[in-house]
Amino acid sequence: MNRIASGVAFSANFRSSLTRIAGDGCLLTDPADCWPYGYDNSRRHALPQAVVFATDEARIAALVRLCAEAGVALIARGRGTGTTGATVPDRGGIVLSFERMDRILRLVPADRLAVVQPGVLNATLQQALEPLGFFWPPDPTSAATCTIGGNLAYNSAGPRAVKYGTPRDNTLGLRAVDGCGESFRTGVLTTKGVVGYDLTRLVIGSEGTLALITEATLKLTPLPEARRTLRATYADIHAAAAAVSAIMAQPVTPCALEFMDAAAIATVRHFTEIDLPEGAGALLMIEVDGPRACIDAALNAVTAAAQVAGLLELRRADSAAEVAALWKARKSLSPTLRHIAPKKINEDVVVPVSRMGEFIEGLERLSHETGIRIVNFGHAGNGNIHVNLLIDPDDAGEVERARDCLDAMFSLVLRLGGTLSGEHGVGLEKRDFVGREIDPVALRLMSEIKRGFDPAGILNPGKGLPPVASNAQDESMG
Amino acid sequence: MNRIASGVAFSANFRSSLTRIAGDGCLLTDPADCWPYGYDNSRRHALPQAVVFATDEARIAALVRLCAEAGVALIARGRGTGTTGATVPDRGGIVLSFERMDRILRLVPADRLAVVQPGVLNATLQQALEPLGFFWPPDPTSAATCTIGGNLAYNSAGPRAVKYGTPRDNTLGLRAVDGCGESFRTGVLTTKGVVGYDLTRLVIGSEGTLALITEATLKLTPLPEARRTLRATYADIHAAAAAVSAIMAQPVTPCALEFMDAAAIATVRHFTEIDLPEGAGALLMIEVDGPRACIDAALNAVTAAAQVAGLLELRRADSAAEVAALWKARKSLSPTLRHIAPKKINEDVVVPVSRMGEFIEGLERLSHETGIRIVNFGHAGNGNIHVNLLIDPDDAGEVERARDCLDAMFSLVLRLGGTLSGEHGVGLEKRDFVGREIDPVALRLMSEIKRGFDPAGILNPGKGLPPVASNAQDESMG
Repeated sequence: MNRIASGVAFSANFRSSLTRIAGDGCLLTDPADCWPYGYDNSRRHALPQAVVFATDEARIAALVRLCAEAGVALIARGRGTGTTGATVPDRGGIVLSFERMDRILRLVPADRLAVVQPGVLNATLQQALEPLGFFWPPDPTSAATCTIGGNLAYNSAGPRAVKYGTPRDNTLGLRAVDGCGESFRTGVLTTKGVVGYDLTRLVIGSEGTLALITEATLKLTPLPEARRTLRATYADIHAAAAAVSAIMAQPVTPCALEFMDAAAIATVRHFTEIDLPEGAGALLMIEVDGPRACIDAALNAVTAAAQVAGLLELRRADSAAEVAALWKARKSLSPTLRHIAPKKINEDVVVPVSRMGEFIEGLERLSHETGIRIVNFGHAGNGNIHVNLLIDPDDAGEVERARDCLDAMFSLVLRLGGTLSGEHGVGLEKRDFVGREIDPVALRLMSEIKRGFDPAGILNPGKGLPPVASNAQDESMG
Repeated sequence: MNRIASGVAFSANFRSSLTRIAGDGCLLTDPADCWPYGYDNSRRHALPQAVVFATDEARIAALVRLCAEAGVALIARGRGTGTTGATVPDRGGIVLSFERMDRILRLVPADRLAVVQPGVLNATLQQALEPLGFFWPPDPTSAATCTIGGNLAYNSAGPRAVKYGTPRDNTLGLRAVDGCGESFRTGVLTTKGVVGYDLTRLVIGSEGTLALITEATLKLTPLPEARRTLRATYADIHAAAAAVSAIMAQPVTPCALEFMDAAAIATVRHFTEIDLPEGAGALLMIEVDGPRACIDAALNAVTAAAQVAGLLELRRADSAAEVAALWKARKSLSPTLRHIAPKKINEDVVVPVSRMGEFIEGLERLSHETGIRIVNFGHAGNGNIHVNLLIDPDDAGEVERARDCLDAMFSLVLRLGGTLSGEHGVGLEKRDFVGREIDPVALRLMSEIKRGFDPAGILNPGKGLPPVASNAQDESMG
């Protein structure tokens, strides 16, 4: 097995092959040009040795073969909106940008599918689908600027996942290139298919470590005719958590079930002119969608479920302006927090819905013990909580206490039966914690899979999985 | 890598270890006792050398280690309702029956999940869930007698898949034992989770070739309050196919969208007293479910979509008796065909919904060319067609023509962008055709995965994947 050269200068031979394979105008090597391709939306940056713009599968395959032979790391990149450093070339190597492979190849409403190149922006696809009466459910907050390829690489979802699922639930098949530079097809064009192992879902969420996606066949969903929005405020998190359980236990699944804790509400109240009842300890934003004729019944079902002990106020939006007003509290939160603490740590853990109250209580305890201000919001219907640690990065003591706090929080998440990431992925940020969640045997199996797909270990080395003995080539040059 | 002993007699040492590991009353070695564990619902049978009743994960792990060391094949079995020979021990070895691991371990409505042992019957689980207001969507026709473990092994679905998906869409996590005899956990307890590769969906549908499932965490769905049933008859298959496309393109997804072609209708008409309009060339059974307050609107939406050119009659059931009457035509079909042709070949192919008309037309042509009577019905909403070849197994010429006909049909399916199996799986029946659907690179990757999970090649050897050079140990003793 090759070792990955960590930032070792390219040989003249390698350079000339790279120039030929990349094609005219598709290669950057000047550090100033490469610089912006070295970051993502984490605070990490590393300068790639070169940037190649992917244009077609054959060139990608040739590039992979070249890198595999030379032991040069190859890091797939959409638009760099990830939050875990997964596309940061921390060991040097080549960043392969998919931004120019941005064509929608086929839209087939009759078969509820779309075939796209990986560089298509999520929002661009949605705009193309809307006139046909369809949408693709995954809706990360960054939809306007993130690519479908990135959504697939990190299995990124958003509020709609509570009803419509994540990319793994909304993708029928892929074309991809493995770490040997060989192209292959996974999956089917249909919603059923049981021939061979499920490589589609294996590649989705693998953070560019198994294969480079060159084309995706996406499962489409008809656009709902109508939507209704509610805002419910509760005395405390336990009341809100009970409401979430009650809402999820009845047959009308909301298309969004977002939550904010007391600290989040206090933040919003302090920085904006939003009308919230006194004593609000937790807030839920609830949306239902469906056929126009059913929408009021759906709203009534969810309204009934939301009425648990501790409900302070239930407010319904009847116009677009009222919907915008209701969402204002939720949407103002992230920018406001970024304003207070530009270097806030934004976590992405998940706990079973029934343990959410316990989890938030545990976080309040941790905040008290460590002195770190913690603000929580997120996708309550999935138990997916964005835990925000508002730290001052110049206060070394606080940074260290934040590290301890995160560590304790991960332990709490796992004790409650949760998972360390719901939609952001692992990348570099959580790599060292993965071994706490996934047992050694499963990690060994994952390493074997990695070895099968990428024997030279060149595809995004060192991301996603922790270093293990049997996968030591990934770490040896780290 | 070990070679798999094909029916070679067990050594005295192996026998004594096997007796110890299996535990009291959990081992069969008398051929008369083992006989019934050698078949499934295909026409295949092979005598296992021993049958072990799985009781707990530790014993399963010990048994796998024993078999891996001795190179003895180990074949997981639920209740033998599969149709592809996947559980038939065609190379001898040990059948591991999960029928006694039949406990429902936990039902957690608040988290919409159930934890079960693999031997729980599908119907038993549904009965346990009903009082809690939930169900588990996969509903194979054999639900009364098939196990959850079997459903997972073959990713088996049924009519409800059109709305609610297959086991891969309805399972959160697994416990399993790999081919080295090591236990591991996959997945999460929540509907989101992106830590590590998706081993859950990889193991689901792998037909017992990667790992033995010892426990499953299933995603539950709230029971709909109401259901409505329609029967639509059309002049020909093209009209029915257009209706299917129209129904699937609007926002109310039916919970069943079953179809019968002209030959199926003729069969039903000939053998039963069912009232069907003259000239009916195709029939659809359409069901919608949902909240009581919405059900009529849902029915209206689907009714409108079903009204395409060529519609002869649209009949709605208003009572349970009428629903039963409407389903009678569809449900009488399989027994009737079995009565006409006890050895009928029941295929399970899938084509994109938009190609269904073309596919059925191609089958009519094939029937004409080969003289084989072909009757088609199935799950139209998924494009999943059960193609029935009514052959006389004593007519050697017909059997050979049927083989050619199947071959031509598989080519047609793949030309139309379909897949060879929607819910039955591959087993032995379709193993030799898999290479036509899955490209050599993807097959190599699947073999690498197999090798990583089961280096000794003892878990259900020779099933699911075709023999390939790099996986030759599976075939060398065949």
